Amino acid sequence: MTEPFREITEADIEHAAARIDPYIRRTPVIEVALGNGSVGLKLDCLQVSGSFKGRGAFAAVTALGEGTRGVTTASGGNFGSAVALAATTLGRPSTIFVPETSPDAKIQRLRDYGATVEVVDGYYPAAAEACVAWAAEHDVEFLHAFDQPDVVAGQGTCGRELLQQVAGCDTVLVAVGGAGLIGGVASWIRDSARVVAVETVGTATLHDSLAAGRPVDLEISGVAASSLGARRVGELGWAAAQRWVDESLLVTDDHVIDAQAWLWDEVRLAIEPGAATPVAALLSGVYVPEQHERVVAITCGANLDPASIPTVT
Amino acid sequence: MTEPFREITEADIEHAAARIDPYIRRTPVIEVALGNGSVGLKLDCLQVSGSFKGRGAFAAVTALGEGTRGVTTASGGNFGSAVALAATTLGRPSTIFVPETSPDAKIQRLRDYGATVEVVDGYYPAAAEACVAWAAEHDVEFLHAFDQPDVVAGQGTCGRELLQQVAGCDTVLVAVGGAGLIGGVASWIRDSARVVAVETVGTATLHDSLAAGRPVDLEISGVAASSLGARRVGELGWAAAQRWVDESLLVTDDHVIDAQAWLWDEVRLAIEPGAATPVAALLSGVYVPEQHERVVAITCGANLDPASIPTVT
Repeated sequence: MTEPFREITEADIEHAAARIDPYIRRTPVIEVALGNGSVGLKLDCLQVSGSFKGRGAFAAVTALGEGTRGVTTASGGNFGSAVALAATTLGRPSTIFVPETSPDAKIQRLRDYGATVEVVDGYYPAAAEACVAWAAEHDVEFLHAFDQPDVVAGQGTCGRELLQQVAGCDTVLVAVGGAGLIGGVASWIRDSARVVAVETVGTATLHDSLAAGRPVDLEISGVAASSLGARRVGELGWAAAQRWVDESLLVTDDHVIDAQAWLWDEVRLAIEPGAATPVAALLSGVYVPEQHERVVAITCGANLDPASIPTVT
Repeated sequence: MTEPFREITEADIEHAAARIDPYIRRTPVIEVALGNGSVGLKLDCLQVSGSFKGRGAFAAVTALGEGTRGVTTASGGNFGSAVALAATTLGRPSTIFVPETSPDAKIQRLRDYGATVEVVDGYYPAAAEACVAWAAEHDVEFLHAFDQPDVVAGQGTCGRELLQQVAGCDTVLVAVGGAGLIGGVASWIRDSARVVAVETVGTATLHDSLAAGRPVDLEISGVAASSLGARRVGELGWAAAQRWVDESLLVTDDHVIDAQAWLWDEVRLAIEPGAATPVAALLSGVYVPEQHERVVAITCGANLDPASIPTVT
């Protein structure tokens, strides 16, 4: 590397927490019976913008210099919505690049949040390329969805809140896409509790990277592809995961669908597939807590069509 | 009255809280921006059985004598589900009477919770009559959905939790059907905070009774009819409301639908129409908090088909 690697420190997360406090929600933890014991659910699905991405987006936009004209990113999903909301709330223009394959509902949502939307021919990589080029040309800040220090520090505030809320927490289960959330959360928790990563078999970017000893590229597939669909973990998340993630688990698509149904039927929570992987690990027995182990599963996103919630009955 | 009226005391609610503590959830309060300020939402929509009724049902079933054979009630809705769940959890048989007009999904839900379901020809009053007669014949305890001391004391635990959770709470907004929830909550809160009742214009049983100075019967209609559809407030709720409810407000069906859409779009909560009336009062301007007034709206039920959630976009 040409420059020293930028580790996410406790101070980074503290500063992010102070900046975003007026804009984000302190999301609750609810204790629910599961199997023979009980588990805490950290409800970041109730966060502004409908997912934990609101934390990182507000952390990035509140860190911008006075002279910055605006922000841009390439995302038709949760990060795009979060950036649009944060930028509009803070009086900055935002331009979100999406591929032509994006559903109209997602594009409308970005516009509702006040963004200018640029629809690019082709798939996601074309939108990302157009976005980076446009940012350089227009002196606008390009925000990366998961590999940018302010964003990862913002996601880390979820772990900070959680440890404040749950005394004696032993283990935190976290979903992994680009590793922004787990990177931030693990950078705060470190050795205060065990951090367990949970991915689906079709989106096992961190799992495969840990096995290989370095970040590897992956073809993404399955029920969680749209929300955990990063092809490669970010450098920041990778560095934190190598040091602070204690275990990396995989669940199947069926486990995820069962977990979504359980979350609705038992707790009346609408959780998108990618955000249901921690509960899927517990319900399926992929992760079996010790007796008296105090476990918290982060349920980190609810950006789905409510009509798509699988139900048991 | 032939016997002295049974007021719900703080001790009743404390005892109910102690009995139900192993079975129910301590539901969180989340602070969300609304209008120019912010409001707390007490998330009893995440309670076991999908509504606050789980509190009253567990309070009633845990209070049964050892010799009681089982429990019965007439309800295809939230109270029926809650009684079935509480009875099964505590090892008691339950028989739930429903009219033939009940949807199959609700009957299946009762069976999933372990109840025996008796489907009665005709409408709800026929089911209620059959239930009471059957209870007397079989020495089984009949549980009234809202006009029974243990049930109302159980609902009061929601108010007790809320005051523990929200320091300096000024005002609590509560939906009213048969007045079991507001009766219990107001019996705990008394003069510690203002208690504001919110009904729809089509289910204004408490509002019309307060205007008349006595409980009056009402024809029920509109979007909240199925969950707030008691034709007359209970005696227990009426007595508490007369003493401790500070204000009684009405919202329209459109206000309720707007509130459901807002709760989904802004907070990702799935709330049934009857449980959305407190938020409807705030969003519509029917209730306008003073500056710095600390307001909590109880969102008390989520038993709806997720596909029926109205969305803005």
